[in-house]
Amino acid sequence: MKLNKLWSAVVALLLAFPAMAQQTKQYSLDELMWGGSSYWQLQPKNLYTSFWGDRLLEADVEQIRTLADEKGKKVKKPEVLFTLDEVNAAIDTAKWGKVYSLMSHRFLSGKETSCLLSTSKVRFLYDWKAKQVVWQQPLAQQTQASKFEPQSRQTAYVKDWNLYVTRADGQTQQVTTDGSRELQYGMSVHRDEFGIYEGLFWSPKGSLLAFYRMDQTMVTDFPLVDIAHRVAQLAPEKYPMAGMTSHKVTVGIYNPATQQTVYLQAGDPTDRYFTNIAWSPDERTVYMIELPRTQDKAELVAYDAATGQRKAVLYTETNSRYVEPMNPITFLPWDDTKFIYQSRRDGYNHLYLFDTTGRELRQLTKGEFEVLDFVGFNTKTKSVIIRSNEASPIRYNHYSVSVENGKRTLLDNGRGVHRAQLSESGAFLLDRWSAPDTYRSVDLVATAKPMQLQLHTAQSPYAANGLPPVESGTIKAADGQTNLYYRLVKPVGFDPQKKYPAVVYVYGGPHAHNVDESWNYLARPWEVYMAQRGYLLFVLDNRGSENRGFEFESVTHRHLGDNEMADQLEGVKFLKSLPYVDGDRLGVHGWSFGGFMTTNLMCSYPDVFKVGVAGGPVIDWKYYEVMYGERYMDTPEENPEGYASSSLLPKAKNLKGRLQIIVGYNDPTCVLQHSLSFLRACEDAGTQPDYFVYPGEGHNMMGQDMVHLHERITRYFDDYLR
Amino acid sequence: MKLNKLWSAVVALLLAFPAMAQQTKQYSLDELMWGGSSYWQLQPKNLYTSFWGDRLLEADVEQIRTLADEKGKKVKKPEVLFTLDEVNAAIDTAKWGKVYSLMSHRFLSGKETSCLLSTSKVRFLYDWKAKQVVWQQPLAQQTQASKFEPQSRQTAYVKDWNLYVTRADGQTQQVTTDGSRELQYGMSVHRDEFGIYEGLFWSPKGSLLAFYRMDQTMVTDFPLVDIAHRVAQLAPEKYPMAGMTSHKVTVGIYNPATQQTVYLQAGDPTDRYFTNIAWSPDERTVYMIELPRTQDKAELVAYDAATGQRKAVLYTETNSRYVEPMNPITFLPWDDTKFIYQSRRDGYNHLYLFDTTGRELRQLTKGEFEVLDFVGFNTKTKSVIIRSNEASPIRYNHYSVSVENGKRTLLDNGRGVHRAQLSESGAFLLDRWSAPDTYRSVDLVATAKPMQLQLHTAQSPYAANGLPPVESGTIKAADGQTNLYYRLVKPVGFDPQKKYPAVVYVYGGPHAHNVDESWNYLARPWEVYMAQRGYLLFVLDNRGSENRGFEFESVTHRHLGDNEMADQLEGVKFLKSLPYVDGDRLGVHGWSFGGFMTTNLMCSYPDVFKVGVAGGPVIDWKYYEVMYGERYMDTPEENPEGYASSSLLPKAKNLKGRLQIIVGYNDPTCVLQHSLSFLRACEDAGTQPDYFVYPGEGHNMMGQDMVHLHERITRYFDDYLR
Repeated sequence: MKLNKLWSAVVALLLAFPAMAQQTKQYSLDELMWGGSSYWQLQPKNLYTSFWGDRLLEADVEQIRTLADEKGKKVKKPEVLFTLDEVNAAIDTAKWGKVYSLMSHRFLSGKETSCLLSTSKVRFLYDWKAKQVVWQQPLAQQTQASKFEPQSRQTAYVKDWNLYVTRADGQTQQVTTDGSRELQYGMSVHRDEFGIYEGLFWSPKGSLLAFYRMDQTMVTDFPLVDIAHRVAQLAPEKYPMAGMTSHKVTVGIYNPATQQTVYLQAGDPTDRYFTNIAWSPDERTVYMIELPRTQDKAELVAYDAATGQRKAVLYTETNSRYVEPMNPITFLPWDDTKFIYQSRRDGYNHLYLFDTTGRELRQLTKGEFEVLDFVGFNTKTKSVIIRSNEASPIRYNHYSVSVENGKRTLLDNGRGVHRAQLSESGAFLLDRWSAPDTYRSVDLVATAKPMQLQLHTAQSPYAANGLPPVESGTIKAADGQTNLYYRLVKPVGFDPQKKYPAVVYVYGGPHAHNVDESWNYLARPWEVYMAQRGYLLFVLDNRGSENRGFEFESVTHRHLGDNEMADQLEGVKFLKSLPYVDGDRLGVHGWSFGGFMTTNLMCSYPDVFKVGVAGGPVIDWKYYEVMYGERYMDTPEENPEGYASSSLLPKAKNLKGRLQIIVGYNDPTCVLQHSLSFLRACEDAGTQPDYFVYPGEGHNMMGQDMVHLHERITRYFDDYLR
Repeated sequence: MKLNKLWSAVVALLLAFPAMAQQTKQYSLDELMWGGSSYWQLQPKNLYTSFWGDRLLEADVEQIRTLADEKGKKVKKPEVLFTLDEVNAAIDTAKWGKVYSLMSHRFLSGKETSCLLSTSKVRFLYDWKAKQVVWQQPLAQQTQASKFEPQSRQTAYVKDWNLYVTRADGQTQQVTTDGSRELQYGMSVHRDEFGIYEGLFWSPKGSLLAFYRMDQTMVTDFPLVDIAHRVAQLAPEKYPMAGMTSHKVTVGIYNPATQQTVYLQAGDPTDRYFTNIAWSPDERTVYMIELPRTQDKAELVAYDAATGQRKAVLYTETNSRYVEPMNPITFLPWDDTKFIYQSRRDGYNHLYLFDTTGRELRQLTKGEFEVLDFVGFNTKTKSVIIRSNEASPIRYNHYSVSVENGKRTLLDNGRGVHRAQLSESGAFLLDRWSAPDTYRSVDLVATAKPMQLQLHTAQSPYAANGLPPVESGTIKAADGQTNLYYRLVKPVGFDPQKKYPAVVYVYGGPHAHNVDESWNYLARPWEVYMAQRGYLLFVLDNRGSENRGFEFESVTHRHLGDNEMADQLEGVKFLKSLPYVDGDRLGVHGWSFGGFMTTNLMCSYPDVFKVGVAGGPVIDWKYYEVMYGERYMDTPEENPEGYASSSLLPKAKNLKGRLQIIVGYNDPTCVLQHSLSFLRACEDAGTQPDYFVYPGEGHNMMGQDMVHLHERITRYFDDYLR
């Protein structure tokens, strides 16, 4: 080798070395996202548990074994309760098929050595001491909804929109016969608003079944089209749009013993919402919370379950903006005359104790924080277990609250974001949590004594130098007072001397937040992906988002988008104040309400944002549905100015930057009329948005499409912002 | 001024001067395209004419005046026949409304001094000598089709899918009552294939009316959605897809005198096509050409018009690929026993003389060229006037053909592309033509003597230095033998030393061509726009396109796309051989069949084309309709390999370059299932096409959307190819 060649080699090596030193692992979206096929291969082993009484068990596909005893003490040597093979040996697999995994199981009582399991054809109780099936019930096929009642061992289910009940002995009763797509029995109603997610409500002992009946013959069909056929087929969706004729809901009570149904005598159901169905412990009374279509009033009403007779209005709450009851009442396990009602009437969601005469006994929780979840009771200490953000708006912990004196005790470690499940007596919480620096931890927490037993912990599966620096902090909202929480995801290999393009990810609507103290401040996989590619990501929970109290959320009432955008612009100000942000290269991306925000920001501030990607956007609230839409916007007739000024159709002409709108072609939530009307408006105005659709997908992309979608979003920023 | 400043100024001037000299007028798409609002302002004045007998008249909005006398001699001083004001003074404008323009008018006979005109409410004959209305007939409103018969002055029309006849005296007869979207009367049938474009056929003197009846109750609806409503509405289109159940057509004969209808006794209409309806001069016989669904046979059949009885099959033609009769028979005006039949049986479309017994008397035209149009007769010389491409495949001229001896005489100047209209006796042609160097010319041409009188000529409204150099030539097809015609549009300000990106514009399907000897070789406005922006455009009429004979067109039979792409690849070879073409920057764009070609080329040759824009593409021929689709592909059952290999769904995975698919959201021709299925296939395969839709538009964009569309297409090439 001649010297000059050697010298070149040395130079090449010297040049290559710093690059190698900085080389970071590049993750694909497939590795980063839940929808990706390689995501799960990368994930650290998890711990799957359940309670058998107060005993904690661990489950996997093959076996179920003890983890902690009824005192919360970790067992030294886990004992296998039963295995998959044992279960399959006990059932007639030729007739019923096999159980393929023990992950899905349920212990009905800590007093019995049996476990509820199922194949695709049968539900059964397996007694692992006797190693045999002690009860079984054939499962109806192609059901649309199903609800098992453990005490009476009855199953209510919906098939072809009609209601059926299978009794413990397997005998099946057809409850209704005139069900159809237009007249549904036993299904969730009111488009899943007001905390509704199902339509079957067994009484505590299974003597009676309350169920929803929804007549939507009078509701306009929105013509969705399903292309997955030789010739595309109409797949219409009953979709009552703001201000238009809505469906009519009634509540029936079915008695399997008499095979009779009575309907609650709630009066004319036109333009009313019947929500949060609950039973009295003695099964004699059914409670619901009733709202008029205006949603400015909520009444807790008691009905005689045997006759359907309206007995009393126990409590009434009004609000000139809106009342939004999200939780049914819950009776104290130790006192059948008292129940807990959740209300935001003092500005935050709190618990109130009532008696069955409607007398308000006391407010159980109070303060400038939200009770996020009512988890259950510790019957021994007579306390309520809740989850709240008392410590910080973005920190979610569990507390016990004494029903007697309202004393609150922090149960978990007080860090991060926790979500827990209660044991049978309420003595223990299985507490799954993460924190900005903690990927995942699972603890067993006692609710009546200080005890936090770490059962499992998992490190992030991603190499530290492959992950971006993530920070969180607060800025002031556009009102100059309110603290807003942000997350800042810096590019991987961040260099403060450089200028980076920045993308604002936004949702901005009610019932959601994007910043909290879970792992990496809740940074989304796509943000990591973008940070790998040299983008800075910024996420701000503006006013109008959840968990910050009623005023924070409802300040947007009747003019959705205005305060939300004003706050996001404060975020942009902050971003531009950072020396390493290139203020000329700002992008914005959001989905659903965030798609509305993105399109709105692109068209309202065409000189601020250069590139936007809006997914499943609302374009005009008059195309959105009655329940959600009218809560925040009233009807188009009541609020014509609000509808006009929040519509993005007149703003289509302002579009200057690059905006891609992406939708699921079969979106039943935010129907295609939104995006298509916007395209039409742009075409008429001579502006040029981009567009993409996922045939067969609904409001959100699923599985591999999620990965495809985010490749697409990324490419758009790469094309026009990088 | 100091010297150095002066010097700078001189340098600046010197630098500026060559730039100024080369400065060209930049035209917007709005100025270049028919859909643009400024296009028409730029257009030179045109000449609008009509024949009154053999006299040539000129019409504008305000008046109609003489241009040439019945001898074809230009009048020295044009005489005004009548004015708009005179017409409106003669009608009851209070009752009928006004005539707003004389551009739309019709002279029924050279022997009468009256002209047929109409307002929106009335059709009337205006006698300009008497200055009065001599006959009038109210016009039905909101009709779907309408046909006026001048001798009997009757109007047949369709309203709400039912057939009506208004007699000369204004009396209206309802002919059918069970019409509906599914059962249509008097409308065009068979999706406008086989030369069908209407469904009402008056007999020569108006005694009888033949009409189509189409029963499509058995045809699957394709669910199109119209978003121009408060809630989007279904706007279904009866769309029989290849291989699926098709509609049933019958032909009725209505007699307004007896108000009776008989149906032609053609037998079971299942899977049959009834086309090219014609009348005998004595009104006693109706002729149609009948094809089985296989389209491999055409029969000319005579029916008794009074009874509907099938009289005789006069002529049968078969072809293992397909027979495609496009023209009804035409009787010689001087001999009721003889008619002309057009056929491509010798490989080119030619005229044949038959007598009414079905005896073939002689072939009137012959040669390796196509008779493009049968224009009419010169009754005095007993000759036929045709338009053909005898001189060159891309040159379209008019000829007279002696019925006696077949002698052909060129009538026009033999240059360019002509389209003409015949005077009453056939003595004169009003000949509108253009040539590569001639924007527009209008001549009066005699059909029995050498006479070409130039009436009007118009220069291009575009500055010469704003237009690109356009060339045409031939290359060999992929078969190594066939000449294919191309057009090469070079960038405006072309510099042979530079390397330019090139875009192939392609259609490639039957019934169309893109290169001929009209102005600028038929260069499209968008090509000019692209040439302004520094692109080179290349257009090649591959095998499978029109006007080149049966073998040229039908070589694609059962495997659409293969030969067409092979030929386009020959075009690419040629392009790459040009020193000023940058072979690494090739794009492709096409619409409809051209969208199929574009998508196909992008996915079949991912390393050849970098960027493509495909409009309204066919993606899989099984989603296309029965009439057109099965002609070229047979049914999916008969030709499974052809359907499989021509489908672009399996090719979706190959996509590498940038491909934008654009469709009219309400396209009833190439339904959205094509593009949506392709997106789905790409999503499943992990490839990334782009997509855009025009809500409310059909298969082709109209008006201002055309301009918007081409801005969009241009931007895509600017983004990724420039």
